[in-house]
Amino acid sequence: MTHGSTHSQVYRKRLEQLQANLRQKGWQAALVMQPRDLYYYAGTAQPANLWVPDEGDPVLFTRRVHKLAQEATWIDLTVSASGFGEMSRALADLDLSLPSGAILGVEQDVLPYRLVEGLKKNLEGVTLENLSPLVLKQRFVKDDEELARIRKAVELWEKGHEAIMETLAAGVAEYEVAAAMENAARRGGGDGMVWPRRWDSYLPAGGIVASGPNTWEVSGEAMTVTGVGLSQALPWGPSSRRLEAGDLVVVDFALSYEGYHCDMTRTYCVGDPSQEQRDLWERLLELHLQVVDRVRPGVTGEELYLVARGLAEDTGLIYNFMGVGSERGSYIGHSIGLEVDEWPVLGAGYREPLPVGAVITIEPKFMVPGQGAVMVEDDIVVTPSGHEVISTLERELFFR
Amino acid sequence: MTHGSTHSQVYRKRLEQLQANLRQKGWQAALVMQPRDLYYYAGTAQPANLWVPDEGDPVLFTRRVHKLAQEATWIDLTVSASGFGEMSRALADLDLSLPSGAILGVEQDVLPYRLVEGLKKNLEGVTLENLSPLVLKQRFVKDDEELARIRKAVELWEKGHEAIMETLAAGVAEYEVAAAMENAARRGGGDGMVWPRRWDSYLPAGGIVASGPNTWEVSGEAMTVTGVGLSQALPWGPSSRRLEAGDLVVVDFALSYEGYHCDMTRTYCVGDPSQEQRDLWERLLELHLQVVDRVRPGVTGEELYLVARGLAEDTGLIYNFMGVGSERGSYIGHSIGLEVDEWPVLGAGYREPLPVGAVITIEPKFMVPGQGAVMVEDDIVVTPSGHEVISTLERELFFR
Repeated sequence: MTHGSTHSQVYRKRLEQLQANLRQKGWQAALVMQPRDLYYYAGTAQPANLWVPDEGDPVLFTRRVHKLAQEATWIDLTVSASGFGEMSRALADLDLSLPSGAILGVEQDVLPYRLVEGLKKNLEGVTLENLSPLVLKQRFVKDDEELARIRKAVELWEKGHEAIMETLAAGVAEYEVAAAMENAARRGGGDGMVWPRRWDSYLPAGGIVASGPNTWEVSGEAMTVTGVGLSQALPWGPSSRRLEAGDLVVVDFALSYEGYHCDMTRTYCVGDPSQEQRDLWERLLELHLQVVDRVRPGVTGEELYLVARGLAEDTGLIYNFMGVGSERGSYIGHSIGLEVDEWPVLGAGYREPLPVGAVITIEPKFMVPGQGAVMVEDDIVVTPSGHEVISTLERELFFR
Repeated sequence: MTHGSTHSQVYRKRLEQLQANLRQKGWQAALVMQPRDLYYYAGTAQPANLWVPDEGDPVLFTRRVHKLAQEATWIDLTVSASGFGEMSRALADLDLSLPSGAILGVEQDVLPYRLVEGLKKNLEGVTLENLSPLVLKQRFVKDDEELARIRKAVELWEKGHEAIMETLAAGVAEYEVAAAMENAARRGGGDGMVWPRRWDSYLPAGGIVASGPNTWEVSGEAMTVTGVGLSQALPWGPSSRRLEAGDLVVVDFALSYEGYHCDMTRTYCVGDPSQEQRDLWERLLELHLQVVDRVRPGVTGEELYLVARGLAEDTGLIYNFMGVGSERGSYIGHSIGLEVDEWPVLGAGYREPLPVGAVITIEPKFMVPGQGAVMVEDDIVVTPSGHEVISTLERELFFR
């Protein structure tokens, strides 16, 4: 557990990049309020409003616990202001008020409607635009400090895998497998939770355990193996179904360490896999390795998806690839970092070249009703010479 | 684990009550989108938009997984509509379009700004109002099905307590105590997560473990014992601090079962408590029992708070009650249910009489810098004749 291990120089660089992006857009300022974005720029998720003018020094307006936030942030100027009215008056005192007609970026995808309406009332004549695309595009490329934390999250997954291998047996419930995984990660120093960006998409402690028929039933918002959940309160994720001998079990878990997520999947079998199950797994693994091999600077998410789809066609399993029948996702992975599923999704329509420093998942799956699903998901950083797979856990059809 | 154990009659009654409330407000319809509210009215948290006219039958517009949502809900009319445009056209086909000048209630406290802006574009001439106060006021009173689930959550806490007692020792980290608690609850069939209503307030797996000096350092959004967290990514909750002999340890955990939360706190001591620690605990417990004793239909949250504050004054600990020095909360508890902290907060300014069926917490604490904190939190249902404490775990200063 390290506190404040990220140097202020790293944060300053992030902030200056945001300011350059604001100037390019012709926006006069940004207001960062979402805790994940605050942690990224201010170095702390304490409740605060980070005011970023298009040039010059930022101001951190603390909404509560001023002293703690002040101690935690690298930002020199911190001002206690619990509401937008106080913030607006403080901005005037600092000669930072925006002129009429100015544009302010705010995180319109995550801030509640009423909160933004309250902000508007205190910023008359200012036009609001959605800041999040700028922030998410910047967050897409990770620095060394971020990568180190994702690697630590991968280590937690490896501990979780050991716990799964000790737990896996006929008669054990899906949620008991999840409990073993979660506990190993928590005892290893994990955050004990994961962060989605979507407002309505939850995962219990970060993961899915789906077995037998639950592997091909897609529920909720996601387009993947989702499981069916314990109840209608959370109708995805691990259920109370008890594993049976011969089941395929997909474990798709995100785990967070100091706010950074890994997102990995391995497939398990309860007892010796059948020849049919081994074949299905081998076909998936071959596809997976070929797609991973294509990850390098400049390739697009759409290209990676199309390669994967082509390989699925070649192997005769196109109608079981990334879904079932007509309900199939047209993607092959996504970015990870401060949130489980970060922008962008790597799939049809995403045609920007991958940058060096992006950390992405590649997560193919075959879902075969009546037989089960196989899925593998690795975390990969784009390097100048190609890529490095940072999820180093073996890729095999594990069984016990 | 029960699926669909709540009869459709219960849901229909809830929906009819919402319709009566809409008519009283003079609103023509409500659109329920938040998963917790959907689960409450439609019986499932599957992604959907629930359209509730002020009278007549509701329509569930499924945003995804139509078949699963249809199977899970009691609502007869379900229509697949992935966006607001599709929903708007379907409403027209059903002759349910709102006339110009009509008022539609939506959950403005939790829906993201952009989402509501998108809705507005598809409902020209309709005025939006904030639906959430109506929903939350209705949710304040629990029916038997809801109470049964909260009782199950309390059972999970009792399992967690046993795990804490086995783990508590000098040298154990706060997060290891949390891991033991969380694992016991998860293995007992808990949801493995908790739901806040606030958009920016997270708790790792639902709980706080704070020991020694971390018990009087208040962090984040809450006004309670918060702990300081593992890193600035989540600077509250359990930290990596290792317990020391003689520490007071506050464990404030919410746990969820089929979507319903308990929220309880007990205080532990690492080794035999000193006479000073026992005295502090006894003064808290006496205050607590006197406040709990006042819970009955008709009493207001403000009255309960004022009684508690008066008792804290009498015992000479007013500056350590619900905070430290000038940073003290003016409340004594809150409602619980589908979210950890539900409306209302029982404190200064809340002057409505408690209704029969409300499930509330009473959670006094003394926070003494240099010495530690003691806190106790019980879950209590208001009954016609007074109240019933449903958190039946012993109230003592536990030690090992």
